[in-house]
Amino acid sequence: MRDKPPNLTRIPSETLKNFAAECLQSMKLEKEDAIVIADSLIQADLWGHPSHGIMRLFWYGARIASGATQISKEPEWELDAGGLAVLNGQDGIGQSVAKKAMHSAIDRAKQHGISAVCVRNSGHFGTAMYYTKMAADAGCIGFISSNASPSMAPWGGVEKLVGNNPWSWSAPAGSFPCFMLDIANSAVARGKLYHARATDKPISEGWALDKDGYGTINPADGIAGQILPIAGHKGYAISMAMDVLSGILSASQFGSSITGPYQKEGISGVGHLVIVIDIAKCRPIDEFNADMESLIKSIKSSKTAPTQSEIFYPGELEARNHERISQAGIELSEDVRAQLQIGAEQLGIKTPFI
Amino acid sequence: MRDKPPNLTRIPSETLKNFAAECLQSMKLEKEDAIVIADSLIQADLWGHPSHGIMRLFWYGARIASGATQISKEPEWELDAGGLAVLNGQDGIGQSVAKKAMHSAIDRAKQHGISAVCVRNSGHFGTAMYYTKMAADAGCIGFISSNASPSMAPWGGVEKLVGNNPWSWSAPAGSFPCFMLDIANSAVARGKLYHARATDKPISEGWALDKDGYGTINPADGIAGQILPIAGHKGYAISMAMDVLSGILSASQFGSSITGPYQKEGISGVGHLVIVIDIAKCRPIDEFNADMESLIKSIKSSKTAPTQSEIFYPGELEARNHERISQAGIELSEDVRAQLQIGAEQLGIKTPFI
Repeated sequence: MRDKPPNLTRIPSETLKNFAAECLQSMKLEKEDAIVIADSLIQADLWGHPSHGIMRLFWYGARIASGATQISKEPEWELDAGGLAVLNGQDGIGQSVAKKAMHSAIDRAKQHGISAVCVRNSGHFGTAMYYTKMAADAGCIGFISSNASPSMAPWGGVEKLVGNNPWSWSAPAGSFPCFMLDIANSAVARGKLYHARATDKPISEGWALDKDGYGTINPADGIAGQILPIAGHKGYAISMAMDVLSGILSASQFGSSITGPYQKEGISGVGHLVIVIDIAKCRPIDEFNADMESLIKSIKSSKTAPTQSEIFYPGELEARNHERISQAGIELSEDVRAQLQIGAEQLGIKTPFI
Repeated sequence: MRDKPPNLTRIPSETLKNFAAECLQSMKLEKEDAIVIADSLIQADLWGHPSHGIMRLFWYGARIASGATQISKEPEWELDAGGLAVLNGQDGIGQSVAKKAMHSAIDRAKQHGISAVCVRNSGHFGTAMYYTKMAADAGCIGFISSNASPSMAPWGGVEKLVGNNPWSWSAPAGSFPCFMLDIANSAVARGKLYHARATDKPISEGWALDKDGYGTINPADGIAGQILPIAGHKGYAISMAMDVLSGILSASQFGSSITGPYQKEGISGVGHLVIVIDIAKCRPIDEFNADMESLIKSIKSSKTAPTQSEIFYPGELEARNHERISQAGIELSEDVRAQLQIGAEQLGIKTPFI
């Protein structure tokens, strides 16, 4: 029997989380802030969304290093009026600001039944359902939206003015892992266009426009042009609505005034809206959970299409990935390992992998 | 100069609204209920959405006549707890129940900053933004969702278990007509498949599955199969979320237990969720409006794609249609006129057209 070579590409999630937190603390972040960034990144990897995982560590790091993300100011309550509140993130760490807003919204909902927290001057917070799951775990329905740096044209236009402005709703689901919806309003991640170009394949209709504003299935033309919203004009309209809720209602930045997490410099300007409803105030939570189980069972036990072996409800695949990847460790590509190595070296920190 | 023949297909909107209300009152509806159904139908026609307009009058009428829609019971508050409330529609008229819920949610938001009204045992309410516009007109941001009778399969399945579960957000927009988002989660209205079959044209990819669960561009196969959600699995997930918010949170019916407005018999069972935020509690309304104008202007003044002459923001086309059709009258096809004539005759009412 041959010895297997040591598999250095799969790292236990706790090891990676500690590594990420150590890097961030060495950048002078408070321990609590370091842990929330680290945890939210690792959670994305565990859910099977590596695009929002640890590969982003030093993207956030670069903005902290440049001072674009402020680490020395505390978020401040500008309005604290029972069910409704406004939180000024003071250009701080999006993950910490959003977590504080969600925790507060949950407390407010437990007291008033329904709550909203408008967040201004926040930063890119990563995966939206990381926050709404907190509400679901507390027996509530949770909503969060954020605006984002412009990545798409308005429907019928060619200038990048509209962000993919993510939004999420989550709810408990009885004995099932919780129901989690997490939507970005672009038809496709930009990375898929790069991948298609690299593998010399056409892209799907409805993914991209070329630089002149014509639909294209050529990935290179799409890269030179821009990504389309989900569901055509509907996705454009949804993205605009999320900008109104997140940026304008909170008196934060909006439209083309947002700086994205890929830029080292420049204040982010993003805003969020958090809404939480305490389910037990509306109806007994056991009955709610029983209905959720019944809905999920009816869908999962229905006949599958010939191309599918199983039907999933929103959030189920993430829960399954979480279980599998928690056991197996997080797989990092050579590329990501190299990026993390460079970032860690600059901080004098050893990576937990070679 | 030849005399033009009298144009009997374009009827002033007020005339049609009065006709609709007269028909409904002769079916023993209270005047107020008759007017809200009539007004919401005519409003859909004025916004340029005839599929939700007066052509539906006797679909609602048939459900009233059969007793599936109860007209003698008042909606009842089951919870009245400040910002949060639960309204039991008592299987009544969806339009009246939803209007009552929205009006109450606006009052509650004016007092508490944020409000939610969960609505159970309601009926099909027509166009979602008819209600959220009420919030926008009151200086608020308004949300409404409803579940609906099953029309789509869960993603990866072939059985009709998921409704198109519409949802809407509206907001004031300063000197512009208000911002209105109104989403149904199906890729296409079923009528478009019938139209394609009649005109012998293929349908777009992503619109429908055939009866075995394979994607199809043949309209007849799509009619025998089913409509797909918007944006693939994302639309399925959004539809499920709206069912959770509308049907399960309110303790109404959900999933495949909803009866649609096209059925004469059977209690509807739909629920809604209404959320309202009073903008002035979050920031000065003038500043909100100025930012809305600035966002809209930046989008409308941006470069158009070669295939487009103008860029619209959500709700703008509806406002423009409203102005035009208010002047010109509502155009009714021969088909719709014939349907209205039959319904009116049974009530002994004369149509205001031949």
